[in-house]
Amino acid sequence: MRRIDNFKSIIDRYEVVFFDAFGVIKNYSGLVPGIEKTFAYLESENKEYYIVTNDASRGPSQLAESYHRMGLTAITENRIVSSGMLTKEYLDLKVQDGIVAYLGTKNSAHYIERSGLEVLSMSEVNESNMDKVSALIFLDDEGFDWCEDLNKTVNLLRRKTIPAIVANTDRAYPLSASNVSIAIGGIAAMVESVVGKQFIRFGKPDSQMFMFAYDLIREYRQISKREIVMVGDTLNTDILGGNKFGLDTVLVLSGNTLARDVETRVTATGIMPTYICESAVVSLDELAF
Amino acid sequence: MRRIDNFKSIIDRYEVVFFDAFGVIKNYSGLVPGIEKTFAYLESENKEYYIVTNDASRGPSQLAESYHRMGLTAITENRIVSSGMLTKEYLDLKVQDGIVAYLGTKNSAHYIERSGLEVLSMSEVNESNMDKVSALIFLDDEGFDWCEDLNKTVNLLRRKTIPAIVANTDRAYPLSASNVSIAIGGIAAMVESVVGKQFIRFGKPDSQMFMFAYDLIREYRQISKREIVMVGDTLNTDILGGNKFGLDTVLVLSGNTLARDVETRVTATGIMPTYICESAVVSLDELAF
Amino acid sequence: MRRIDNFKSIIDRYEVVFFDAFGVIKNYSGLVPGIEKTFAYLESENKEYYIVTNDASRGPSQLAESYHRMGLTAITENRIVSSGMLTKEYLDLKVQDGIVAYLGTKNSAHYIERSGLEVLSMSEVNESNMDKVSALIFLDDEGFDWCEDLNKTVNLLRRKTIPAIVANTDRAYPLSASNVSIAIGGIAAMVESVVGKQFIRFGKPDSQMFMFAYDLIREYRQISKREIVMVGDTLNTDILGGNKFGLDTVLVLSGNTLARDVETRVTATGIMPTYICESAVVSLDELAF
Amino acid sequence: MRRIDNFKSIIDRYEVVFFDAFGVIKNYSGLVPGIEKTFAYLESENKEYYIVTNDASRGPSQLAESYHRMGLTAITENRIVSSGMLTKEYLDLKVQDGIVAYLGTKNSAHYIERSGLEVLSMSEVNESNMDKVSALIFLDDEGFDWCEDLNKTVNLLRRKTIPAIVANTDRAYPLSASNVSIAIGGIAAMVESVVGKQFIRFGKPDSQMFMFAYDLIREYRQISKREIVMVGDTLNTDILGGNKFGLDTVLVLSGNTLARDVETRVTATGIMPTYICESAVVSLDELAF
Repeated sequence: MRRIDNFKSIIDRYEVVFFDAFGVIKNYSGLVPGIEKTFAYLESENKEYYIVTNDASRGPSQLAESYHRMGLTAITENRIVSSGMLTKEYLDLKVQDGIVAYLGTKNSAHYIERSGLEVLSMSEVNESNMDKVSALIFLDDEGFDWCEDLNKTVNLLRRKTIPAIVANTDRAYPLSASNVSIAIGGIAAMVESVVGKQFIRFGKPDSQMFMFAYDLIREYRQISKREIVMVGDTLNTDILGGNKFGLDTVLVLSGNTLARDVETRVTATGIMPTYICESAVVSLDELAF
Repeated sequence: MRRIDNFKSIIDRYEVVFFDAFGVIKNYSGLVPGIEKTFAYLESENKEYYIVTNDASRGPSQLAESYHRMGLTAITENRIVSSGMLTKEYLDLKVQDGIVAYLGTKNSAHYIERSGLEVLSMSEVNESNMDKVSALIFLDDEGFDWCEDLNKTVNLLRRKTIPAIVANTDRAYPLSASNVSIAIGGIAAMVESVVGKQFIRFGKPDSQMFMFAYDLIREYRQISKREIVMVGDTLNTDILGGNKFGLDTVLVLSGNTLARDVETRVTATGIMPTYICESAVVSLDELAF
Repeated sequence: MRRIDNFKSIIDRYEVVFFDAFGVIKNYSGLVPGIEKTFAYLESENKEYYIVTNDASRGPSQLAESYHRMGLTAITENRIVSSGMLTKEYLDLKVQDGIVAYLGTKNSAHYIERSGLEVLSMSEVNESNMDKVSALIFLDDEGFDWCEDLNKTVNLLRRKTIPAIVANTDRAYPLSASNVSIAIGGIAAMVESVVGKQFIRFGKPDSQMFMFAYDLIREYRQISKREIVMVGDTLNTDILGGNKFGLDTVLVLSGNTLARDVETRVTATGIMPTYICESAVVSLDELAF
Repeated sequence: MRRIDNFKSIIDRYEVVFFDAFGVIKNYSGLVPGIEKTFAYLESENKEYYIVTNDASRGPSQLAESYHRMGLTAITENRIVSSGMLTKEYLDLKVQDGIVAYLGTKNSAHYIERSGLEVLSMSEVNESNMDKVSALIFLDDEGFDWCEDLNKTVNLLRRKTIPAIVANTDRAYPLSASNVSIAIGGIAAMVESVVGKQFIRFGKPDSQMFMFAYDLIREYRQISKREIVMVGDTLNTDILGGNKFGLDTVLVLSGNTLARDVETRVTATGIMPTYICESAVVSLDELAF
């Protein structure tokens, strides 16, 4: 575990960089200042990069658009790997027909629709269509009535043996410097404990996220895990998951892990990044040389 | 572990009977048919009895009234020991002043009010009064907006170090023969896991419930634990808790535990009642003799 | 939560003091220096006190002797409440006959023997006597072969539905300034997770420990919970348990909780002592006045 | 979920078959009777197959030899994917030098040795070499003194921040029709809970196991997840993991899941195999046609 002042010097050692989104590229008030220089540098060096993010609230094209609106046009749809995309892959492979009920906004469900599958908000599930529900997905904490629709979900899962998929395992997400919101992963864990059944979860630290990104690269080039580095702000998702998958990892201090706590938290959790770096921003000075 | 057909023969061996409420005396459609005969018999024999129930939605007088409305007038306020009463005792002993914020109906908070303490629904907690909040109580799953008020609760507990008390640890409760509702204990467990702090929990199987009832008896008479039997329908609350407190226990099959599952569930959990009995109803035939 | 320099001033507010043992009165190298003055002061003031300790390795008379050998003669057998004594009470009330198998030293099992019950080390349980085993107790981490006897225990509990009692829930205990040892509570948790059955646990923070001590006092005098203070070095056993039982609590910094961590750990856990004090030692200066 | 009498008809729908080992191909008394016909059929049809097994007690060549000794010569070293192999990959990618301490037999550590890394049994770790320990691996429940070496492990991990890798997450394994043994995964979970750090775990249901096998195939041919079926006897490892990875799954009733329990367990866990089949044996009758 080494402290490195210079993010560029880390990038220079790898062929491909995986970035977590929240706390690394953006935060609750917009882009991390200066992060566009990092992506400019990556482009200039012809380095590959992917955003590997626990997010199922939108599809990859909408996620890319959200970066564009903030002024980061480098991040295109094909650069994004989200836990929502794993959920879509699961449905494609494992759910042939019927209705996929979901908890989330209409928007969050949009990109998992496909011919042969009807998607339906839990708020619209009722006695007349319940028989056709063949899977349930936890997508987003918005877009439904927590009390009414979670109770309906509990009773649906007690009555029917169908797969329940948690498309984002995070328990909370930041709203501002001081406030968080309960995330769909936290809600799903409550439903799971009430129902007593085993749900299927997608999202870091689970290695399936990293594998999905790894496979995207291998479609067009050869790559070893040694040539990829994972950059994240959270020890128990980004760093634990990256390490376990066999990647080198960079903990940046621009998000969940504060500079003053980093030693304590690494020691307490036993989760060790390969490098610790202030942020994922490549400084102008570095670029000058 | 013995199967006994005759609930009266069990009662006859003890001085005091503790009853769980739901699944033993009442269910979602009203009183367990015939249960009034059990209480008539207890009265005729001058046996003591207490209702020991995980319930914080109402105070003991309102709980007693609810039995009266169903036609069971034997159960008076002083016969009831609820997890809500332990919460009240905690506040009396440990919280001197300030505002006690609560999640639940106004009714659920009514009986914990006392001079020196203001109780305030989480929906009314805001920046202007948050500084005075000295404790938080989880009382009932109704009476608040799950999404808005649970997020507010999470952020209150992240900001302030105050005791958080779960007045009913049950994760779900039955609404009908086929449906359940998420209970405040399930909701509190989600908030606890998001916040990462340790809450204080009251309710069976915790022994403090049994001790509270035991102390009520000892105020006016001497009693040994050997002379008390706990009657319940749920292995991991009523029976586990009763056993651990040192009481003999009766598992009745009129609620959560079905006759066809009882062997499997006792073996799987390792929780063994002293007796298994169809129900807590004393039959007319038995009374004839 | 108040920091108090002066342990005597805390004592002076209460009628009865409960002390944790390890980290408060003694540590791995002997008595906490000066602690005998605290007990001298308590005696001089005619204050009651009890040692409330998670320990099942010896009976109360042997625990008392161990204090005497260290030079603290004030602590007599009747001042000690241990999790082992709750286990003994459980057996007295709930196990009528048969063999009680145990994991621990012969010494640890000695004080739970009584007429009608045979106690037998798991190392001596075999096909010929297994049928008579009516309960299993986890007493101490020493006195048996971990590999052989824990595997035998797992298979005994898979074959027979009998109560399994954990007489000390601590997962580890300190051996020296830098080393710990896995405790019987940690071992029991492993066996429980492998077997999948629910064990019965005794020890702080569970309120039954405090209740046992509270009952001892009430045998000879009236006392309110307001008049008792619990002194301990560990937030999640001594302080959490004391608070929940309704007692005022003192966190001392002579054991598990270090002065430099105390703010962080109280905030992180949400477990708040009434007072924080350097140690449970009453200084000579204080006694002079 | 469909019950299929005829295992051959399942195989015929897929290009590649993944088999769990224990409870599918072999059990405590040797090979599952008739299983060699299944492998003969696979060979005759030129179908690929892999053994995907939670086992870190031996390397793949020794695992293959053990099948040969039982008379199943079809299973060669390159057909085996074990959780131990993932551990080896982790060390190759993430641990450059130093000593890798292990819990297990000398044999279990043999195949992870490589130039640049010294492997050393925890029983041989001492003050003189502890500084050089750069990783710790849980390999097997045999080959060390549980009491002495687990306590040493706890203190090593408290003192040093190094990765701790659990090479087999199973908590128990069967020894005979009625007896099990605590497995290294159960032991590791105890150490993890005592130490309070986060370990790295390899083994089903984690998707990294399936990915490893999937990658082996893709080295020489193109394959879709739709063309692979996972055959296992355990819902919460083989079937949950296979489903999540996107494979079709077959639950066989020759091991952990009994025919009489299968409905109950699928409903209770919510883990649904694509097919349920008596065993993985292709019958002679089937082959005749």
